[in-house]
Amino acid sequence: MIKIAVMGLGTVGTGVVKVVEANETPIYHKLGDKLEVKTALVRRFKENSPYRSLMTDQFSDIENDPEIAVVVETIGGVDAAYTYTKRALCAGKHVVTANKQLVAEHGCELLRLAKEHHVNYLFEASVAGGIPILHPLTQCMAANRVDEIYGILNGTTNYILTKMVREGATFADALKEAQEKGYAEADPTADVEGIDAGRKTCILSDLAFGHQTDPSVVPMEGISRIDLKDVEIAEKAGYRIKLLGRCLRLENDGRTAYVAPHVIPVDNPIAGVEDVFNAVVVRGNATGEVMFYGKGAGELPTASACVADVIEALQATPGRPEISWDDNTDGFRDPLELTSSYYVRVKGAPSEKFGDVKILSQEAGQSAFITSAMTGHEIQSLTADALACLRVLA
Amino acid sequence: MIKIAVMGLGTVGTGVVKVVEANETPIYHKLGDKLEVKTALVRRFKENSPYRSLMTDQFSDIENDPEIAVVVETIGGVDAAYTYTKRALCAGKHVVTANKQLVAEHGCELLRLAKEHHVNYLFEASVAGGIPILHPLTQCMAANRVDEIYGILNGTTNYILTKMVREGATFADALKEAQEKGYAEADPTADVEGIDAGRKTCILSDLAFGHQTDPSVVPMEGISRIDLKDVEIAEKAGYRIKLLGRCLRLENDGRTAYVAPHVIPVDNPIAGVEDVFNAVVVRGNATGEVMFYGKGAGELPTASACVADVIEALQATPGRPEISWDDNTDGFRDPLELTSSYYVRVKGAPSEKFGDVKILSQEAGQSAFITSAMTGHEIQSLTADALACLRVLA
Repeated sequence: MIKIAVMGLGTVGTGVVKVVEANETPIYHKLGDKLEVKTALVRRFKENSPYRSLMTDQFSDIENDPEIAVVVETIGGVDAAYTYTKRALCAGKHVVTANKQLVAEHGCELLRLAKEHHVNYLFEASVAGGIPILHPLTQCMAANRVDEIYGILNGTTNYILTKMVREGATFADALKEAQEKGYAEADPTADVEGIDAGRKTCILSDLAFGHQTDPSVVPMEGISRIDLKDVEIAEKAGYRIKLLGRCLRLENDGRTAYVAPHVIPVDNPIAGVEDVFNAVVVRGNATGEVMFYGKGAGELPTASACVADVIEALQATPGRPEISWDDNTDGFRDPLELTSSYYVRVKGAPSEKFGDVKILSQEAGQSAFITSAMTGHEIQSLTADALACLRVLA
Repeated sequence: MIKIAVMGLGTVGTGVVKVVEANETPIYHKLGDKLEVKTALVRRFKENSPYRSLMTDQFSDIENDPEIAVVVETIGGVDAAYTYTKRALCAGKHVVTANKQLVAEHGCELLRLAKEHHVNYLFEASVAGGIPILHPLTQCMAANRVDEIYGILNGTTNYILTKMVREGATFADALKEAQEKGYAEADPTADVEGIDAGRKTCILSDLAFGHQTDPSVVPMEGISRIDLKDVEIAEKAGYRIKLLGRCLRLENDGRTAYVAPHVIPVDNPIAGVEDVFNAVVVRGNATGEVMFYGKGAGELPTASACVADVIEALQATPGRPEISWDDNTDGFRDPLELTSSYYVRVKGAPSEKFGDVKILSQEAGQSAFITSAMTGHEIQSLTADALACLRVLA
């Protein structure tokens, strides 16, 4: 019998307990032993919870329990999660997490700490929930130089954009409906302003390029300023607007990362990713583009990714070398240095400075068009008065 | 310095040598050591090959070389590949392969042999080329009970079907073009009759359900009898025809597997997989449906999957428990037991026996329609005289 603890009994934490119970047989088959959740750390006891007997409000009950081999952290945020993760690793316990903020901000340090204590710190569930992406990226694509990753990393914003496309809903109305359905928080800032996607983008960049990408320097633009008019013009012209997190390898060990809405040709497979689904595209120099698609959030998908990491932690050679990055943040470059085409909408006709443009729409005294390729700096200098300006994914 | 051998210097074998050279840096980063191809087994020496110095025509040069830790088998087929794989495993060398026929027919035995000799037998490249699928299935989705896998597993047939949809080409014309472009062999039987997809389906079934699925009992239907007329009717009605390999978990430890063309609603993400691309959908009881998409064949994608397995073999705990299945073939059931809707085209009007049908087209004295759900046995008894009958993916 292998015993684990869960910290936090919210959606994901409860899901972990359920997955361990429901999938006892396949888990036994993988581990060669039975897995059991012994302890669950909560802030307040809930007397009528079916998991009452697991609960403790003392972290030390987990920290000092030699029977507990793995701790699953689903507290979220930094404060308590950070402290308890460090203490659990120092106590020689593997830690598995779904906490993207903690990994994005302190992953480098926590991985180092894990290595020092010959345990694993694993976080497959922190990016794209139940979709396997971190493991395939670091292991299955290990023979590639990874040059780029982009993805739809936030289900809430993708749900809102899908509503805008399909039903002609405005951003405000679509957000309201997402909140009513429980897809968006009462305070939706982290989702709609691209911060959640940004944290996940940082983790992907860390793993792909081997150096810390500090979330505070990554430009994150959300979807709150997207005008339904641009959604409609793009759609009629064979494009779709999606919020992408993206990171790229640049020359001389450089790299960049950002989150922004993109205009994407509908024949790109990622344009067809709808509702709360997520998708991540990894471009390797040997494999080309590989896409991973599925449910990026939710109780059971995210929990099952945590439990897979529990199994991995218990099976793997401790301190596998591939899952780490250094804290050198020097090579990060402003994504405005990148060159691409842009979707622009202006009053009147497009200026010649936009190059050889492709007109998508001309009506009511406005023009919408795709520009020639230019840097972000150039497009900024040309679009101070524009009604809309969105990067095009080539 | 870690040294490996390649058996066979065809497309994939040559790709392995290229990937090891080109991606020396990322591979070093993963292994903590330099990787080098020391020896390549060929049938005939090619004097002007850039790899002439690696070549041997004696397998014993590899078998008896204590420096060689991993052997990559890209010979293909069974005969020599089977013999040399067994001898390499018995000599204590890890073996990595892209050979789906050998894995589908003898994987169970070869995995057992590998375990006995404390080495790995890995074959990520055998299914869907450069797309990570076997590893995510066995490792990242380890906390799921896998209930179903289906996928577009053969690029040649998908290319042909895409030509039929986009350009209105007949099967014969599209096949000819695929042969001219080098996507199809001079003898295209294994591709167009579903045998290649069938072998890959068996491997997926073996890993997902834990028991040997014998290719000789798996019904494999290809695309050679698909009429352009049905492609067109389906397309106009919002469906697309794709060749799928599919395996399902059934009650009482049962399972089934088959390859057949399917009619798929266009809003299913797999319907948008075009040209030579592959995609595999895995349905887990916790994760739901997860899709893996990318290039399923080609020199560098397939070779990079082999090299990733080389890295995995050198890193992993020998004999990881999860990659194995037993040789009990009892639970295999005829896919005609499955229930689904069917696309049927008949002369005249549909009989009432097809249930509550959805008419897609009625012209020139023929009707095309989607039936109510029924078993394969039932539909067979109703369609002896039908002009077309294809399973619908719900």
